Amino acid sequence: ASVERRVFSGIQPTGVPHLGNYLGALENWVSLQHQYPLILYSIVDLHSITQPQDPEQLRANILDMAASLLACGIDPEKAILFQQSQVSEHAELSWILSCLTSMPRLRHLPQWKMKSKQKSEGSVGLYTYPVLQAADILLYKSTHVPVGEDQVQHLELAQDLARIFNHRFGDLFPEPHTLLSSTRKVKSLRDPSTKMSKSDPHHMATISITDSPDDIALKIRRAVTDFTSEVTFDPDNRPGVSNLVTIHAAMAQLSVEEAVSQAKGMDTGAYKRLVTEAVVQRLTPIREEIERLRADRTHLESVLLQGTQKARQLATPVLKEVRHRVGFC
Amino acid sequence: ASVERRVFSGIQPTGVPHLGNYLGALENWVSLQHQYPLILYSIVDLHSITQPQDPEQLRANILDMAASLLACGIDPEKAILFQQSQVSEHAELSWILSCLTSMPRLRHLPQWKMKSKQKSEGSVGLYTYPVLQAADILLYKSTHVPVGEDQVQHLELAQDLARIFNHRFGDLFPEPHTLLSSTRKVKSLRDPSTKMSKSDPHHMATISITDSPDDIALKIRRAVTDFTSEVTFDPDNRPGVSNLVTIHAAMAQLSVEEAVSQAKGMDTGAYKRLVTEAVVQRLTPIREEIERLRADRTHLESVLLQGTQKARQLATPVLKEVRHRVGFC
Repeated sequence: ASVERRVFSGIQPTGVPHLGNYLGALENWVSLQHQYPLILYSIVDLHSITQPQDPEQLRANILDMAASLLACGIDPEKAILFQQSQVSEHAELSWILSCLTSMPRLRHLPQWKMKSKQKSEGSVGLYTYPVLQAADILLYKSTHVPVGEDQVQHLELAQDLARIFNHRFGDLFPEPHTLLSSTRKVKSLRDPSTKMSKSDPHHMATISITDSPDDIALKIRRAVTDFTSEVTFDPDNRPGVSNLVTIHAAMAQLSVEEAVSQAKGMDTGAYKRLVTEAVVQRLTPIREEIERLRADRTHLESVLLQGTQKARQLATPVLKEVRHRVGFC
Repeated sequence: ASVERRVFSGIQPTGVPHLGNYLGALENWVSLQHQYPLILYSIVDLHSITQPQDPEQLRANILDMAASLLACGIDPEKAILFQQSQVSEHAELSWILSCLTSMPRLRHLPQWKMKSKQKSEGSVGLYTYPVLQAADILLYKSTHVPVGEDQVQHLELAQDLARIFNHRFGDLFPEPHTLLSSTRKVKSLRDPSTKMSKSDPHHMATISITDSPDDIALKIRRAVTDFTSEVTFDPDNRPGVSNLVTIHAAMAQLSVEEAVSQAKGMDTGAYKRLVTEAVVQRLTPIREEIERLRADRTHLESVLLQGTQKARQLATPVLKEVRHRVGFC
């Protein structure tokens, strides 16, 4: 029997995304809208509190993320855009799945090993959130999940839990498949050996998609390159200039080869102006749309509310069936 | 400012309770109904799945527990009797509180140390369920929680989490107080060094509150005592006969001294007949009422549904406020 193809993906409400988020995930989210009949994109605020958050800031970040997703091209007629905490079934299914997950299963997952080390011992939420991620996915009987490489092991947990549940309580959940999103990795402009990141302490390392043309120009002008003035693509030996080529190609929708050939005869300084132009051209309409949407909070809230209602309509019957299978009713 | 006094307690849906449950907890639950203006008693089915359950059996056990509680004297006009899994706010608040609980905080709690040892490594749900218990309590802004001695450390976690939440997000939760329930401990009739328990493999060790008069008589006649025929109350040196005195006193609503004085001149065999009579007299109306209620499933389900609705009316505004304080809306 063929199963309807359903895509689920989530993004933490970190506020306005940066160029790495945009090229690494969001651009792909937009294009998936034309390939799958049913898609859910969730602003996963329940996940965000596994690290301490300022409530005022979190509230603002949720709306900023919603505005950004819309401005980047997420179409609420094509994809269900919603806020995770507003659909209570996520936490409920997570509890049930946590009773099917053994403690050691979570011990070696990358997020715990990474984040708990930073502050000696993390919270229970930080330890268990891969189970909540599995619930996010299974709650909608999702068949395909776009993930970055760092999330592959978490998706394996969701696959395991689908199997364990189906085995114990009868077939219910399809095993979700990985859709590896773009392998494009945008690096820090200050240290091209690390990923571009919102939490980078160096302000000049990260381009936000709402940066002004002047800020973008300044950050790219200051981007770390090397002492060779010719532009080539060689990420291992020339990570800085190669990062600029990656950004240029992606923003101008060229292949890497085309981007390098456009740079022929230019020194790094001239090439940086070309890259800046491509980034500004692509981001300007997005920035303007985000500003427009931010000024219309009522509209944003109503888009999220409609998404919540659609998500709930899908989640309610699934959780009802889960509750019955488990023996609660 | 004075806070309305609210009692919360939960019981796992193990089916029909035994005499130890009845005298150790349920009798106390009934009398609390006359002492507190607002009381919630929850059949905590979400907790029951921290150990594997057969779904059919769990469904039956939930209804049997509801029938038993009503038959023992829980009055749905005085106490809100409801099924935990039907109020989704429990799992939601539990997630939020789990992000405020450090992993080591749960490691030494007695339930994990005890139950996880039996089967090498328990589930994530078994590890984290004290957080769900804290959510059960705080969700209703409970001020008083009747607990057995083995649950005192779990209540301390609820107190800690109330303090941690209030400190981080502003005063919201009262710190719940322990109401130590009856110190009466009913022992196994076959091995008076252990507690009476539903899971005791020895069928004759445990009196169910639905046992027939003949079964009760047989189990008490076979109860382990010692070689002294006089009846005295001396739990350390004469645990078997002292257990019978405890049961007799509790069932006939006598003091221990009164029970012993009624036994004057009797040998153990005669005393066992007296104890049997007290137990049968007390349990007969309860057993008959359970049978009547079991035959009227629609009524049982409607009592639970009304309880669920009342519990939700209390839980919804509290969780809404929690969500706001945390920054979700």
